[in-house]
Parts: sequence; structure tokens; C-alpha cells
Amino acid sequence: MTPIRVGLLGLGVVGGGTWTILERNREEIARRAGREIHVTCAAVRPQDLEKAAAKTGGRITLYTDPMQVVQNPEVDIVAELMGGIHPALELVLEAIAQGKHVVTANKALLALQGNDIFKAARTRGVMIGFEAAVAGGIPIIKALREGLTANRIEWIAGIINGTSNFILTNMRDRGESFASALSQAQALGYAEADPTFDIEGIDAAHKLTIMAAIAFGIPMQFERAYTEGISRLTAQDIQYAQEFGYRIKLLGITRRTPRGIELRVHPTLIPEKRLIANVDGVMNAVLVKGDAVGTTLYYGAGAGAEPTGSAVIADLVDMTRMASAEPGHHVPHLSFQHDQMHDDQVMPVSEIESSYYLRMSAVDRPGVLAEVTRILADLGISIEAMLQREPPAGEQRVDVIMLTHSTLERHIDQAIAQIEALQSIAGPVTRIRMESLSA
Amino acid sequence: MTPIRVGLLGLGVVGGGTWTILERNREEIARRAGREIHVTCAAVRPQDLEKAAAKTGGRITLYTDPMQVVQNPEVDIVAELMGGIHPALELVLEAIAQGKHVVTANKALLALQGNDIFKAARTRGVMIGFEAAVAGGIPIIKALREGLTANRIEWIAGIINGTSNFILTNMRDRGESFASALSQAQALGYAEADPTFDIEGIDAAHKLTIMAAIAFGIPMQFERAYTEGISRLTAQDIQYAQEFGYRIKLLGITRRTPRGIELRVHPTLIPEKRLIANVDGVMNAVLVKGDAVGTTLYYGAGAGAEPTGSAVIADLVDMTRMASAEPGHHVPHLSFQHDQMHDDQVMPVSEIESSYYLRMSAVDRPGVLAEVTRILADLGISIEAMLQREPPAGEQRVDVIMLTHSTLERHIDQAIAQIEALQSIAGPVTRIRMESLSA
Repeated sequence: MTPIRVGLLGLGVVGGGTWTILERNREEIARRAGREIHVTCAAVRPQDLEKAAAKTGGRITLYTDPMQVVQNPEVDIVAELMGGIHPALELVLEAIAQGKHVVTANKALLALQGNDIFKAARTRGVMIGFEAAVAGGIPIIKALREGLTANRIEWIAGIINGTSNFILTNMRDRGESFASALSQAQALGYAEADPTFDIEGIDAAHKLTIMAAIAFGIPMQFERAYTEGISRLTAQDIQYAQEFGYRIKLLGITRRTPRGIELRVHPTLIPEKRLIANVDGVMNAVLVKGDAVGTTLYYGAGAGAEPTGSAVIADLVDMTRMASAEPGHHVPHLSFQHDQMHDDQVMPVSEIESSYYLRMSAVDRPGVLAEVTRILADLGISIEAMLQREPPAGEQRVDVIMLTHSTLERHIDQAIAQIEALQSIAGPVTRIRMESLSA
Repeated sequence: MTPIRVGLLGLGVVGGGTWTILERNREEIARRAGREIHVTCAAVRPQDLEKAAAKTGGRITLYTDPMQVVQNPEVDIVAELMGGIHPALELVLEAIAQGKHVVTANKALLALQGNDIFKAARTRGVMIGFEAAVAGGIPIIKALREGLTANRIEWIAGIINGTSNFILTNMRDRGESFASALSQAQALGYAEADPTFDIEGIDAAHKLTIMAAIAFGIPMQFERAYTEGISRLTAQDIQYAQEFGYRIKLLGITRRTPRGIELRVHPTLIPEKRLIANVDGVMNAVLVKGDAVGTTLYYGAGAGAEPTGSAVIADLVDMTRMASAEPGHHVPHLSFQHDQMHDDQVMPVSEIESSYYLRMSAVDRPGVLAEVTRILADLGISIEAMLQREPPAGEQRVDVIMLTHSTLERHIDQAIAQIEALQSIAGPVTRIRMESLSA
């Protein structure tokens, strides 16, 4: 069989990793795919031309205009590995219009524009592969889209941003501040100069949006996701959580409830005995709860050149086998047949149910706790555990930490407002959500 | 589209679970598969007819002769969920001859007869799905066969027998003896009256054989697998391992080395910090190391009606989408194209490399340790750690435990023979292999 021809948009971290693996494992990959997978051309920025030529040894055509890759007659599959929304969107849509299959590692693009992209692909009968867009090398898209199709998926909870997991791990292990742990992540290349997308949960919300769409057969609803990052977490909260037997992780959580879909990213207390509570450093892990299979977990490297390249190539191999098959045989992009999607809405975060970690600074005198617990009781919120840290000598305030049982978020919002209004409580109440999970 | 028609061979644990899920999630599964999946008939033992009729509410035809399902013109896919080699083999081969696709949960059948079954299926152009044969509901076959196709797989290590993991967990948590933990597993229905397949590692070796074939593109070589069970493990060894910071798990390990393929099931010391060391009870987990992706882990329920049914149905959905596709588009049964398999041989266990836990009973007098360490040194085996347990008052013997660095198994065999010949050592030396793994 003639080789299948791939054009790369981008030869940076992911594009470079993809190239490296295809070179090193060329024979083994072809033994699986049934045809050789040839990169015929790539587009890079003008300032990267020299580096790209050195890397590829002059064996492929390099362009600085990515449209020349997309419209190239020597390209069967376009791999969009450049990131960002523009011009990635226009390039992907043009590739589809040209009848080419597309592989993309671009989670922002899919979370924001996926509904349109998949519609265009369906109309044109081409495949969009995006294993690399979520959790790097972990084949979680395949697990959700094909491996768990028997199940009514109940919820997904994942550590899907390695940068923030690295920061949280260092804050816990070394008692470091957020700022110090972030600096170290930047020094090691795990965090970018502008780390907003990683540390504020936006990157995780992109990935979670994609997983929710597959799990529940709903359109991408990134604009409705609740996103809270780790930048306001203190080493003190991490320490208190440990005293209760919990670890704090930045989790992406999506859950199907009778009242709508939960879609939220935030720091979360998890019992330390759970496997996922022990996923540290830059590693990722995703828990999936299905009604038939129970809880399954998928763990691995969530970023990096070769792990992400591994996911890109898995899609290329799938597409190579299916390149000439009728579109009816394709796996639907979001697991559900396109005319079988539901339009379940993502709920506002005020409507979710959760249990909570609350920390407040209280005047150290009798009756303060009674005031606080009365407020919670009146709102129907019951307390699972409480911890009061004795003040240092001469200090008038104590830290009071309470863990609540499950309740509606808007009840906690009300409780916090009332507690903050107490004269005996100083400053804001810190609130961190808790999940018991099940594995 | 007309429904795809499935005939079940067996309506026991797995068949019953498959039926239950297909009933409960009929609509959601059809939304994914694009067609309804209808069970049209099933074969059960004569003594189970009444129970089967009650379960299926008289809505399907029940046979006591499974060949009537296999040869039934109203069946597109045969799901072999009865187990055992005969008549399962004949039924599967007849289904293939009839041009029907086959789903099977039968790991023994595939490990022993898979080479012939896949050959027959290829010739006839039908698909064999066997996600349910390994690790129950965990989509590990899909991960290996499709998700990690970019990789040169280096090794796989898995807890793939829930019964023995349950027994080992109870031996550790409660200090129970093997016999007592086994009785409890039997009382809870986790172990069969004849538990040999589970506790002696045979079931795990069946599953490992299948994973090795997919990972390395080699024929099934069950007959060359090394199999050692957990029946001779003592609570004392589990305790000593813990003192060194290790847990003991029954692992199936397969590794590609320049000298051949390792394929072995045995109790294994694992550092307690590893995620897989914390997979307890009946749960399963599989670690896969690929050269590009690094180490990934897959965790979930390895047995049970609905988890296994979940895997059966995932195959049914895949087949439904591909039922009318040309065979060239099928995923090859063992990931590699059939004409691209290699015939790498499984090595005898004496040729593997490992590190080792050694326990011996020594006379408590000076010079004994010098004799033992001299034997090890002469064979080039270096010692990583040593522990000597002081004897109770009046006792003349002490337990000496040594952890070695990596060495050839046959060197350890020699060392053990020489140590056992020492007058100062009483009885046999206990040897347990160790793996550091990497996640």
C-alpha cells in the first residue's frame, strides 16, 4: 500500500515529538497501521525554519504559510499542532473543506469551536482525531468514546493539568508558598511565563469540556464551565487538609444529575487513601464512573513532546486504517451519533451539591463557635468534622476549620455571607470543595 | 437501520451482566452504536432454562444446544460467554465458519487456541472481540491495541487476578494466613470451590499471554509462561516486605529484552509508594511502559457481571459500527497486521533478570552471614538491604532477610542451592522476585 501522507502544522514540542516518534518507530508503527505514515511537509514560523530543517534533515518540505500544508495535494491528513484559536480554526476548517482528515492537540480550539468543527467534518465525511487534546499520552478519549460505550457515564473527575499538579505537590511536600512553587515550575519549564491558563484552571476546563461532551453526548459548553484556579491556595490550607486526612488537588469534575450537568474545575479535598490523591508532580489521572463498569482510572503523562506525540500518532494509525472506509463506519466524534446528541444544560455552580472545607479566623472567646454552627444548622448544613487551632501566646484569633456534609452550593454561599458578617469573624471565609470519589 | 442481532452462549455471570446492561442502557447504547443491539437468542444448560427464561422474560429464544445459536440465521454476532476450552473452541470456529463476528470473554481459550482462532477469523474476514477476556471492565485491550500504537511497548505489569489480590490484601491487613484468607474469599464468592486457576497464577498467565501478544506482535505462547501462585506465601513474608517498604502483589509481567520475551506470573515485591502497590481487594490494574508515552496505568474492576458485561458490549458496539466494513478496515486482532507478526520467543524463567527477596533461617552464631554473603558475592550478586530478626529467648535460629540488586535468575538459583547446602542454614530459602516499576 502507498504511504499515508501527513502534513504537520507546527514542529514545536508536540510536532517535534510526533516527528521523533514517527522516525524512531517507523517500522513498528507501519506493522500496526498496515501502511507507512509519511510526513510529507510541515509549516513552521519563519524564525524556526532553520531549526526545523535541521530536525527533519531536509527530507520534508517546510513552509512558513500553514495554508500551503492544508491545501497541499500531497497531504491526506493534517495534524494541527500549533495551538491557539486563530488561525488554527481557519486552517482546520479549510482542511476539512479539502476533504482531509484532521488530528489536533488543540483543546482550546475544540472546547470553544468544536461544535462547528465537528459539524463541518460530518458534512464532509472526514474524521477529527483529538486524543492528544486531553491528558497527553493517556488514551482517555478512546476509553470514553469507545471503551465505555456500554455505560451510562455518571461522572468524571480528573487531574488534567500537570503544571498545577506539580505546584500543588511542591506546596505540600515542601510547605512552599504558591508563588515560590510557581517560580520553580517556571524555572523547570513546566509553567509558561504567563501561567494563567494552567494555574487558573482554564486549560483544565477546556479538557473537561471535551470529556463531558463525549461522556454525556452533549455539545461543548465551555462558556458555562465554572473555573477556579490554585493561585489563592495557601500552604496552611494544604496542611490543615492533611490533618483531616485529605489532599488538595486541582480537579476537573463533570457529573450528570437530574437537574443538569455539573462542569467545574477547582481545588478539591480528596481522601488521601484514594489512588488519585497520590498522583503527584506533573502526572495526570482521570477517574471515570460508569453505571456498569464502576470506577475506572487512567494515569500517565499529561503533557510533553513524546507522550503527546504518542496520542497524535494513535489517531494517525486509526485514520490510516479507516481512511478509505465509508463515513458510516467512523467512530462518531463525540461517541454518540450526531443526530443522537442531547442538549442537557450545564448548571450554574450555585446549583451543584458538594461538601466543603471552610476556614475562618475567629475571635478566641466563648460563644463564637455557637454562632457559626447555628448559621450552618439553620441552613440545614451538617458538620462532619471541626478543628480549632489554639492561638500562639498573645494572639487573639484562632483558625477554625470545618468540614461539612454534602449540601447545595448556594446554601454554603448564604452561610459564608452570614458568617463573614459576624463581628467575631475576621476577614473572608476560605471555602474549598470536597469530593469523596470512590477509587 | 435494522438492529444488529446477537446470540449469547451462556447467561451466567457474564452473560447475565451483558443482558442486564443491554436492557437498562438500550437507548444510550443505540445512540452510540447507530443501531440497536438485540439479543435474539441464547444457549444455556438444561438446568438453567427456567432461570434464564425468567431473566429474559420470554423475549428471546432459549436453546440448550449452543450450536443452534451459532448456526442461527438470526444471529450476526456470537458472544461466547460460557468459558472452558471445549466446546467453546468448536463453537467459536463454527461461528467464524458461518461468517459471524465473535465476542469472547474466554481468556483460557484465547491463550491456548488464539493463534488458530485468529487465523480462521482472518481467512473468513470476521472480527474477534475480546476486551472482556483481560481485566474485566478496564478497556486495556483497546488501550494496547489502539491507544498506544505509536509506541514500542517495553513492558507490562499487572494485577490481573482479583481473587488473589483480595487474598493478599487480607493477609496483609489482618495478618491472616493464606488458608484463612482463601476461605474468606470462597465464602464471599470471590474464589471458586477449586481455586487453582486463580491462586496458582494460571488465570493471570492466560491474560498476560494475550497482552504480550498484542504488545509485542507475537503469537500466543502460554505454554512457555512461568507461573507461580500465592499459595506458599506467608503472612510473615508480607510483614517483612512491609518493613523494607514493599508490598507483595501477584503480578503478571511481560517484557521485551534483547534476549527474548519475559512472560511470568509470580508474587512480587513492589515499593509501597507505587500506585499499583495500593490497588487492593478484588480490583485490577495494569501498568504499561511505552518508549514514547512513558508509563501509563489502567485501573478498575477486573471481574463481576456488569464490569465484564461492559467490556463485552464495548466490543459489540465496535462491531456494530464496522459490521459491513471491508475487513481491511478492521483493527488487527493483535494490533499488528497478521503478516507483520514476529516470532520472538519467550525465554525460560532462568534467563530473566530481577532483584530478589531472600529469607532464610540461620543458626544464630558468628560467621553465618559471612558464609551467605560470600556465596552471593562470588556469583556477582550484590545486596541492597538486609534484616536480621533477633530470636525469641531460647530460640537458636534467626530469620535473615536479604534484598538483592538485579541479577540473572539462574545466578540466584545457584546461590540458593549453595546457601541451602550450608550447615548453618535450616530448611529451604524463600525467594520472592522484586520489581521497582516506575509508577
